[in-house]
Amino acid sequence: MNHSPLAFPVTVALPPPSSSDKTADADRLADALRDRGFGNVELPLGVLRRLSGELRRSGFTADLLIGPTAEGYRVLDIGKKAAFGIALDIGSTNVECVLFDLVTGEKIGEAGAENPQVRFGYDVLTRVQRSMMGEFGPLTDSLAEGLHGLIALICEDHGVASDDVYAVTVAGNTIMSHFFLGLDVNNIPLSPYVPAANKSFLMTAGETGLPVNRNAVVYVFPNSGSYVGGDIVSGILYSGIYREDEPALFIDVGTNVEVTLGCRDWIMVGAGAAGPALEGGVATIGKKAEAGTISRVRIDRMSGAVALEVIEGGEPGGICGSGLIDLVSELFSSGIIDQSGKFTGDGGRIIERDGVKSYRLYQSAKGELSLSEHEIKNFLLSKAAMFSFLYVFVKSIGLSFGDIRKVYVAGALGCGIDPEKAVTIGMLPDIPRERFIPLGNSSIGGAGMVLLHRELMEEVEEIAAKITYREMNEDADLMHALQGAMFIPHTEPEILKG
Amino acid sequence: MNHSPLAFPVTVALPPPSSSDKTADADRLADALRDRGFGNVELPLGVLRRLSGELRRSGFTADLLIGPTAEGYRVLDIGKKAAFGIALDIGSTNVECVLFDLVTGEKIGEAGAENPQVRFGYDVLTRVQRSMMGEFGPLTDSLAEGLHGLIALICEDHGVASDDVYAVTVAGNTIMSHFFLGLDVNNIPLSPYVPAANKSFLMTAGETGLPVNRNAVVYVFPNSGSYVGGDIVSGILYSGIYREDEPALFIDVGTNVEVTLGCRDWIMVGAGAAGPALEGGVATIGKKAEAGTISRVRIDRMSGAVALEVIEGGEPGGICGSGLIDLVSELFSSGIIDQSGKFTGDGGRIIERDGVKSYRLYQSAKGELSLSEHEIKNFLLSKAAMFSFLYVFVKSIGLSFGDIRKVYVAGALGCGIDPEKAVTIGMLPDIPRERFIPLGNSSIGGAGMVLLHRELMEEVEEIAAKITYREMNEDADLMHALQGAMFIPHTEPEILKG
Repeated sequence: MNHSPLAFPVTVALPPPSSSDKTADADRLADALRDRGFGNVELPLGVLRRLSGELRRSGFTADLLIGPTAEGYRVLDIGKKAAFGIALDIGSTNVECVLFDLVTGEKIGEAGAENPQVRFGYDVLTRVQRSMMGEFGPLTDSLAEGLHGLIALICEDHGVASDDVYAVTVAGNTIMSHFFLGLDVNNIPLSPYVPAANKSFLMTAGETGLPVNRNAVVYVFPNSGSYVGGDIVSGILYSGIYREDEPALFIDVGTNVEVTLGCRDWIMVGAGAAGPALEGGVATIGKKAEAGTISRVRIDRMSGAVALEVIEGGEPGGICGSGLIDLVSELFSSGIIDQSGKFTGDGGRIIERDGVKSYRLYQSAKGELSLSEHEIKNFLLSKAAMFSFLYVFVKSIGLSFGDIRKVYVAGALGCGIDPEKAVTIGMLPDIPRERFIPLGNSSIGGAGMVLLHRELMEEVEEIAAKITYREMNEDADLMHALQGAMFIPHTEPEILKG
Repeated sequence: MNHSPLAFPVTVALPPPSSSDKTADADRLADALRDRGFGNVELPLGVLRRLSGELRRSGFTADLLIGPTAEGYRVLDIGKKAAFGIALDIGSTNVECVLFDLVTGEKIGEAGAENPQVRFGYDVLTRVQRSMMGEFGPLTDSLAEGLHGLIALICEDHGVASDDVYAVTVAGNTIMSHFFLGLDVNNIPLSPYVPAANKSFLMTAGETGLPVNRNAVVYVFPNSGSYVGGDIVSGILYSGIYREDEPALFIDVGTNVEVTLGCRDWIMVGAGAAGPALEGGVATIGKKAEAGTISRVRIDRMSGAVALEVIEGGEPGGICGSGLIDLVSELFSSGIIDQSGKFTGDGGRIIERDGVKSYRLYQSAKGELSLSEHEIKNFLLSKAAMFSFLYVFVKSIGLSFGDIRKVYVAGALGCGIDPEKAVTIGMLPDIPRERFIPLGNSSIGGAGMVLLHRELMEEVEEIAAKITYREMNEDADLMHALQGAMFIPHTEPEILKG
């Protein structure tokens, strides 16, 4: 077994009791476990209640499921050999989960859904305000319902009894982790920005109310502060930059842009609003990367013909972040838009309605997918925010892009981004393309790692302790950099090389 | 504060957060507690959820209630200063509880009730048999109902909110502790007599289902084995014999006779059935020591006039154990019964119905209290079982009664027993009377001690580990000793001196 999951099977053969050994069942088990290297083992009352019967049924050979506690171990169940685990990523916009077989270490499936809190406000700060106004209960309830539904769904989809789920890892930003745990969020956005808790939690599902086995181990990633949550900590774990000798970049583009620069010795995180989100928020045709979404766009320089790549094929219903980067890059390279994102001519695919010009990307019987000039502007605003943020952040640490050998790109964008195109539009720095490494959803990636390798909990603590947060939004340099970055690729292209 | 209760108030002033100290609330509290000497403090989610609000309401001065865990401490509540505690004794026949104010250490009141399991069988072994036949659920439920009712009652009687009860200590024999915790009792009476658990439990009320604050500390005394339960361990603590330099005796007469002989270096416990119980079971007029019960009897040697002492006065409704010992002793000393317990004559208070002779102790408009010759026989059988058991036990350890400087007498009998009378009838050994020390209910006494002095939990573990059990029922010596002990005081009176 090449993995060390958060919940794992252990079979112990106990010496049966005799007239010369009347050790009680619980102590007998604890002794045998100690001999196997598991000291300080907690036996929950629910398991202890079945212990005597199980031992006698099995001839004193106990099939146990065991998990870690802060102080040692806990017997999660007896008479069971199967164990499943779920990694959860609680994003402000989406919640995602991955189901694993903890015994084989195999990934069984994944599922996602919109965070039901979105109906209280797309922006997390709006949700905190509504919480302050007395809607904390409905907010936590709606998140819980969403998560419970997602867990029920993924278990059902794969024929796994939710009672056989013995471990759950949870990564989310500080506010989402607080909502998940039912902790007070009111002080997070108020100076001096103090969360109720930053530490990691290692608890039972019974305490959290998650609809899995009530003895299941639930691990919640620690936050590093109000603005650096467990999702970033988990992503840093997944990227591995904390083990690099040389500083590496880790860019997570979700609702916000979060940039981490770090190595073995130090980790610096900066975060800021990315303007309208690069995914979803920018364009009406924007969608998350799922089946039926355009992920790649190629425009023939001569004919202007458009070639699309649709995830899992079929009629496209929208375009994801990487597709949008492709599209804008191709529009620019083909001369259809200029440096400032304005259409250079009319006719062909350029249509005009109510004085608003749009580029028609796709037309079918079902309808049309088009991108307006205004939406292109919004996109450029976002890419400008992201790039200039990156630029100022790296510079503020005394480095230039050229110094950075690895750039991990995570978030919904990270799954299929074409670095060449991103560099073309000036969203990513102009460094050798092989230095870009796509990560996908790094937050759930890290959550899955801890689920399968419990010893990583220690590394997570080290990461969280090592992080320094750098507030960037009020930086004067940033305002300056932003101006030029709103053009394609930039008004001062040398800046792209750092 | 001269006590160190299981749940105790601690007020800590925290440095308020600032832009240079953004430590999360939970960590801030943990740091302040560490400075106060409370390391490794667990903060239950329910308390953590209220922490941020409470800290800001109180200007960062936290009124906490704290209790011990196996590994450190737990914050039981915040914003509270009052804390009450309950000591519980779960006897096979009766359940008793004492309510304490944990802040002042004051005893507030006590209450008791019959163990509702009695309706499944007076004898615990009958209950275990019924449990094996599928009635485990109803048996645990009935005990739980009884305990919950008792706790509700005592809280109500003294105007204490059950939610303000933050600590409960529980002492009971091995089978009662198992029923209380919902543990399998089936193997306890089957060779090789192995309980599910012997260890002590330090858990939360939420886990046990007790109707007090759900974070309350619940301590269950450890058993030393199938036949030496937490009630004996608690009684030994209460008696203090484990701190004596010289061996001392501790006799607990309840449904069974349990005898402990021990000192600082060793503790030996023997137990055996006492025949029909000395309290309740022996005579139809037998009652527990409560208001309206005869506790003392004096028969004038000349006139035969009877003087009675009734607990709290008034018309007597029965006679308690100590009263019964008085009565039999006086009947013998007055020549009304002979050595074998037979009436020596007729007339006066001796009445005969259906060929059965009885002694009329009390007559009122409400009815008559009388003791039959058959009941006297039963009583003598019990006292014979008890004495001979004591004799053989002490002898088997290589001691004689004369070697023992202190004899603690506990159990229902122990509350008011007159050693002179008990020696007269040959129930207790004929040693200087001042060596007898009455203890009352030692099991609840010890439970109350741990409730008020949590450091005693360590001594309890030492006691439980030190106990050696000596099985006496099959002893040939015992059978021999029993024959003579059925007479008053004994057929071989020199045996009374050991």
